[in-house]
Formats: sequence, structure tokens, C-alpha cells
Amino acid sequence: MRRALELAERGPARGINPRVGCVIVAPDGAVIAEGWHRGAGTAHAEVDALSRLEPGAARGATAIVTLEPCNHIGRTGPCAIALIDAGIARVVYAVADPGDHSAGGAERLREAGIVVEGGMLADEVEAFLGDWLFAARHRRPHVTVKWASSLDGRIAAADGSSQWITGHAARSDVHRRRTAADAIAVGTGTVLADDPSLTARDDTGALLPEQPVPVVFGSRAIPPHAALLRHPHEPVLLTGADLVADLAELQRRGIRSLFIEGGPTLASAFVAAGLADELLVYLAPVLLGGPMLALGELGVASIDAAHRYQLADVERLGGDVLLVAHPRPTEGN
Amino acid sequence: MRRALELAERGPARGINPRVGCVIVAPDGAVIAEGWHRGAGTAHAEVDALSRLEPGAARGATAIVTLEPCNHIGRTGPCAIALIDAGIARVVYAVADPGDHSAGGAERLREAGIVVEGGMLADEVEAFLGDWLFAARHRRPHVTVKWASSLDGRIAAADGSSQWITGHAARSDVHRRRTAADAIAVGTGTVLADDPSLTARDDTGALLPEQPVPVVFGSRAIPPHAALLRHPHEPVLLTGADLVADLAELQRRGIRSLFIEGGPTLASAFVAAGLADELLVYLAPVLLGGPMLALGELGVASIDAAHRYQLADVERLGGDVLLVAHPRPTEGN
Repeated sequence: MRRALELAERGPARGINPRVGCVIVAPDGAVIAEGWHRGAGTAHAEVDALSRLEPGAARGATAIVTLEPCNHIGRTGPCAIALIDAGIARVVYAVADPGDHSAGGAERLREAGIVVEGGMLADEVEAFLGDWLFAARHRRPHVTVKWASSLDGRIAAADGSSQWITGHAARSDVHRRRTAADAIAVGTGTVLADDPSLTARDDTGALLPEQPVPVVFGSRAIPPHAALLRHPHEPVLLTGADLVADLAELQRRGIRSLFIEGGPTLASAFVAAGLADELLVYLAPVLLGGPMLALGELGVASIDAAHRYQLADVERLGGDVLLVAHPRPTEGN
Repeated sequence: MRRALELAERGPARGINPRVGCVIVAPDGAVIAEGWHRGAGTAHAEVDALSRLEPGAARGATAIVTLEPCNHIGRTGPCAIALIDAGIARVVYAVADPGDHSAGGAERLREAGIVVEGGMLADEVEAFLGDWLFAARHRRPHVTVKWASSLDGRIAAADGSSQWITGHAARSDVHRRRTAADAIAVGTGTVLADDPSLTARDDTGALLPEQPVPVVFGSRAIPPHAALLRHPHEPVLLTGADLVADLAELQRRGIRSLFIEGGPTLASAFVAAGLADELLVYLAPVLLGGPMLALGELGVASIDAAHRYQLADVERLGGDVLLVAHPRPTEGN
């Protein structure tokens, strides 16, 4: 399974499909084929591995695969059928397929008389699949809500000036985290107020190799000279009227993780809807007072209705501090 | 000097006078007398030590004292004169006397032909004198401004409910820090809204041995049944119209450290006036939104006018985090 995971790592980090690896082992214990998935439209890992064998060579063999073989006819046939047809005797997988249409592979294999074992090295493969698994299970991208504020929760002085509240190390950290996200979102208010480029940049201001897709929520028009229109990726425009529908649309486009960059209206909407899977709160030891709040109204009438999280990490970045929080596990039960 | 500091520690931790210790060493190196100050109205450390000697026994000896001998005729005569009269040949002290009326002792001793050396073990004695030295140098108590808020800077939900935003460990930490302060202050708005007892309590709710003096800022009347009227100390009532004058009044009463407990109006006033020497910000991983802000208006029109601090400490307390910050050293220059 560890070898299968190594093979999976060769696949593309982004895209709508998961990275999967597969090893075919003969009854005598010899590895006779390896395969991995190279992205949407190409063969799945199991089929890729089987394709390297002569017909009949897999008879009685064991297939070790990082994800439960799919039971779904998409651009490729279901892997379960391919394994059955090849005469595989035993299938070992790490993580069950959480897909709506693709799950059920294990059952189909068992019905065909194949021995099936799930859960091997499951924690490692879960961690590896990360946002893809989250997106597949929750039917939406993983949402990170980020803001940088003063200790009293302000993102700017009264006149809107905010450069800089946090220091270099904190801003650098934001860019590193942006580049790891599939998409980065702002509201139209922020486009009009700040004209952000929505790119992930290094310390010299140069673009990092991986750029998140820019997403704009809201109904106001984007000015024709907006910086985000010069982004390497075409922006995705969404109304923000129905965040669940908007997230489903992003998932359809292969976006598994979304970084909410601001402003306060958009961040508050995601928090209020219970759709913030991770908070990144960069705090500078500065006090500003006044009306420019990081979050506005969240619909919390009484303390019992507070949005409660748990701190996952507290990190000092230069003179600032980053708090990372996730929803309390009891929430939503 | 280390022995002199040990002697100083025997003095009372509170009160208007500093804790001072003194050792008299004969020319042959033998310690012939020790003394310390026991509080306002009693002998200063030097006089206390000299009083243990026969007349003439201190002739040619060295006096080692933690604080520069005073040059001030108060309830006791100036120590400088007592040392001169006793025939002391050499005086070694740690920290210069920052007092308006009492400084100048070293100069007076030198004029009398005595060898004077300052600065021995100065850092340790500075740390030991702490708030007394701060108060003497700044002509006011050391001010700590504390609040406990959500990550978005709210101290309560929209209906005012706030029990509890932070957890047990954070609340316990507040009580420990309260007991170390000479006084604890709230505004009249908080008295009317929350009816705080302004006591420092242990985990069982019992009073800790040292209680800060309760101070109320504001012009509204305190209700006759207010909990703070049952405090072991008589409350000090101040208008809050002139914070500098109010702090001077507290210093006259022997208060060297003040803990601003809230509410937002009082905390904001101290921050806006540049009178917050320490911030204690307890943050819970909770989001509330809405109007109940930890700080209100601070008169910061533009980011250049931000009140800037530096983080001295970041501490996780149970599920919460405490940020301790002090004004940036460049501020106020």
C-alpha cells in the first residue's frame, strides 16, 4: 500500500479526480504491475496497472489500491468491472470511495466472489487525499476564511487605510497558503475598494508557480480594468445569493479548496452560514477602534448561538500572531 | 547587594514607599549591621541599619543599599545626612532614586566626600521594584488594560450575554493577575450592567488573600446594593473626565498598578489617551459578530495613527489564547 501511495503521488495535485495508485501482486508475492491516475479523461490507476499486463496475467492476483475501486461509468469504465474481468482474486484498498456515483465498488467486487479488504494505511491516505476527500464527502470545496486584523478586530483605520496592519512574515504566510488553494475568492465590494490581483506571489512580488483560480462573489459589475482580469486564470463569477449552490458550482469545476480573502461581507456570510471549515486569523499588536470590522453581522442573538471553533494552531509570525481554528467537532451534530 | 535585596524583600509589598534593604560593612569586610524599610512612617533602610550600631561604629564603613539614599525630609530625615553624620566612607547602591523630592542623595553624599557607586545589580533590583519604580518615574500607576473577546473582537452577543466566551483557564488567569494589582477599575456603565464584585477569587470562588482596591470611573451613581460596595476595601470613585489627574490621585493613595477590567468605554479611553502600559487580550475561538465590541472609538483616523504595541507573550490557556502586549518602545518619543 505504501508503494501504491507513492505511485498516487505521481498524479496531478489539482483537478476534479483524486490521485490514486495501484500495485498488482502475483500469488507468489511478486509485483507484476504498477499504475496511477494521470488526471481526468485518462485511465484510472487500476486500469492503468492492468494495461501493463498480458491478457490473463492478472488471474488470481491481488490488487492493492489507495482508493476503493470505482463502480461508475464515466469517461472510463468502472474499475470494479475491469478487475473482475482480469480475474483478480483479492482487492485491498485504503479509503472508501465517497463519491455519489462512484461508490459501491467493493460490494460489486464481493458479489463477483473477490476477497475485498478496506482500511489499510487509511490515515495516511486520508491525509494525502485531503481536500479531494473533503470535497467528495461534503459535496463542496473545503472553505478557508482568512482575515488580518488589529487586536480589536479592525481591518483598517476609519479612512479605510490598512497598509500595513500585519507585517511582512504574516503577509508572506498568506501568499504561501493562497498558492495551496484551488481558488481564491473576494466579494465585489473588495474588488471595487481594493482592486486585488488575487494572485499568490513570492517575496519579490513574482507570481508563484501554482495560482488559485480567482472567484468573485456578488452582483455588482467588475470594472473593465480590474487587476483580477489580468490573472493567469479566467475569473469565476458567482452571485453569492446562494452560497451552497455557488460552492456546488465550484466543485463541478474541479475546485476542492476555496480561500475566502474578504471582505467582511463575504467572510461574515460564510461564517454565518456555517461554511467556514478553517479560520486563519492574522492578528497584529495594533489597536484601531472605529467602524472597519473584520466581521460584521453573524446573526448571533445570544451567546448560546455563538459560532464556536477550536484552536488548531497558534503561530507567531514576525511581530504578529496567526490563529488557526476549525469548527468544534460537536457542531453540526 | 544580594543580601541587601533579600532584606528589602522583608518589607511590605504594597504601599506608597519602595521596599529597600541596606547592609553596613566594616573596612575589614565584616557585616556589622542590616536594615530594611517596613513601610510609610517607619525608618528608611539605611537609618534602620545605622540604628543597630553604637555611635561611631559606622565610621569608615561601606553602606550597600538597593536604592539611592534619599535626600528628602519627609516623615523621616534624609538618609544621605544620616549616612554622612554616621561617618560612612563609601555608599554602593543599585538603582537611582527617581523621586521628585527624594533624588539627589548621591550628589549630596559626594559633596560630603563620600565615595558613591551606583548601578550594582541594577537589573535585578529594577525588576524587584517593578511597579513602584514605574509609578515613581511616570508619576502615575502602571496601567494594565484587559479584555476577553471573541476572535472578531466582541465581548458579548447582541443581547449582552457573555457567560462564557473564554473558558475556565483564562478566567482563572485573570483572577491571578487581579490579585497582583494594587487596584482594579471599571466604569459606571459596567457597574450598572454587570454588577461586578471586583474581587480576586480562587477556583472555589473564595477571596484570594490579596485584594486590589476597587476603583470606579464615571459620573453615574453607584446603586446602594452594588456588589462592589461589599468589597473588603472601600471603593475609590473618580470622574474619568481627566484620566491623568485621576491616575495622579491614585498614586497619591499609594496605588502603583491599576488593572482596567472594562467596560469598552473605559478601556477605549485609556488606550486612546496612550495610557495603556500593558494589554491583556484573552481570545476565545468563537465568532459573535454584532455591536458588542471590546473597544469602541480610539480616534484613529488613518493607519499612520494606529496605536502600535509589541507582543510580549502568547500563551494558550485551555482552549483560549492570551496575548500580552506593551507599547512599542519608539512610541511617545
